[in-house]
Amino acid sequence: MRDDPKNWFAESVDVLTYNRNQRVWSIIVTIFGDLAQRPGDRISGAVLSRLTEPMGIKPEAMRVALHRLRGDGWIRSEREGRTSHYSLTDSGLAQSQAASPRIYQRVIDYPQTWQLSIAPPTRQGGKGARDKAMRRKGVLPVVPGVFLAPAQADTVPDSLTMTGDVNNVPDWLRDKIAPQAVMQSYEDLDAALERFAVMCEDMPSLGPLEVATLRTIVVHVWRKALFSHADLPPSFFPEGWKGVACRTKVMDALERLGQPHLKVLEGAV
Amino acid sequence: MRDDPKNWFAESVDVLTYNRNQRVWSIIVTIFGDLAQRPGDRISGAVLSRLTEPMGIKPEAMRVALHRLRGDGWIRSEREGRTSHYSLTDSGLAQSQAASPRIYQRVIDYPQTWQLSIAPPTRQGGKGARDKAMRRKGVLPVVPGVFLAPAQADTVPDSLTMTGDVNNVPDWLRDKIAPQAVMQSYEDLDAALERFAVMCEDMPSLGPLEVATLRTIVVHVWRKALFSHADLPPSFFPEGWKGVACRTKVMDALERLGQPHLKVLEGAV
Repeated sequence: MRDDPKNWFAESVDVLTYNRNQRVWSIIVTIFGDLAQRPGDRISGAVLSRLTEPMGIKPEAMRVALHRLRGDGWIRSEREGRTSHYSLTDSGLAQSQAASPRIYQRVIDYPQTWQLSIAPPTRQGGKGARDKAMRRKGVLPVVPGVFLAPAQADTVPDSLTMTGDVNNVPDWLRDKIAPQAVMQSYEDLDAALERFAVMCEDMPSLGPLEVATLRTIVVHVWRKALFSHADLPPSFFPEGWKGVACRTKVMDALERLGQPHLKVLEGAV
Repeated sequence: MRDDPKNWFAESVDVLTYNRNQRVWSIIVTIFGDLAQRPGDRISGAVLSRLTEPMGIKPEAMRVALHRLRGDGWIRSEREGRTSHYSLTDSGLAQSQAASPRIYQRVIDYPQTWQLSIAPPTRQGGKGARDKAMRRKGVLPVVPGVFLAPAQADTVPDSLTMTGDVNNVPDWLRDKIAPQAVMQSYEDLDAALERFAVMCEDMPSLGPLEVATLRTIVVHVWRKALFSHADLPPSFFPEGWKGVACRTKVMDALERLGQPHLKVLEGAV
């Protein structure tokens, strides 16, 4: 079976899409972040279709997702004859670039100095909204209204702020940073990446579109795991967290696959 | 009037006991802390009575308070003939000595480095008890379960702890550290100490018991103000806090009065 490139590719897609809960708009965000993050980069509708087809994404679902992302100001489209070309807006580009180090760096250089900030007392309702807004920035509410972030990070106005060293990370906080569901999602990711790594030992010669599809899936499942928790160094996580192992396997997989150029992809459809 | 030492003394007592809410046991704690803080120091019942009489404290109230402090393990008593002698227990001595720097130092050398600790999440009831226990140690709950203390301070077990610099003390926290009632008590104390300082310019020659009574009252009203709030440096207090001014006036008054020796006091009754 492994001698047939088509089978190898299909099996790889199958191994890496173990996580069936894919949102199409989020996969498009992954594709642009991975392939079209320089100003001026554009991807045609045809390439987008070819990249997502092997994941079982239907053209109609793709159209809906592109429409949504345009409405959100993440991408723009230009029509040339019968073909649409999509690119990140300035805002989409900025957000994509901001997320990239966390996704693509083999080793993350976490700050030594942290900030704890205590937001002003407020009604219970206001507290929830504040915590939610901070979570969206990747900051963990240690308890309601109390935020742990790298030093110099923005926080809720009028907070008590302190910068320094974290001396003790208790187990209850580790479990809050990565609850059982997060720990399990890393276990699953690690297992899938391990299977894919073994398969890569017999990787056949792949076309650029196949490479791009596999890259997309790897980065997408990785992004999904990463952004399910706060951006904190490994020392804050429960024992047994597979985050560091997964990071290494993701970087190995991406290196092994290589990165096809946009022009090559457009020429291949 | 000021030419008569008796009048001067009575007026001084009057000026300094502006705060009528005196607890007798607490005044005895002040007396031992001020006069009998070395191991082996003893004060007779007769001296205790003479020192507290001018404050309007009745012998019966004194007996009740001494009984309570003995029951609490703060003081012990020894009977010699018809006279009782009282001294601090080891525990009373240790607690008295621990409180002394905050009461008696002209300049307090506050740490530059602070600790913020976040106690584990708990039911609402447990939170209140924890906060109360920390308050008793002079530590402020910034919000429930969140404590600001000098670095290296003990805190609730299993807390997230961070040591470093406090960057921003917001107004809501200043007002929590010293609410309006605390600010007002310092205003009142400052005014009384100011009046006493003016009177001290015409201080007549006083007997050792009178000196000790005045010292007791000064230290007592000062202790009462000090221990109504957390032990934090002036930079954490609201603008206009009279704590530093009061400290200077207290130290000036105690220096002006001088400290009578226990033997001299015992010889004077």
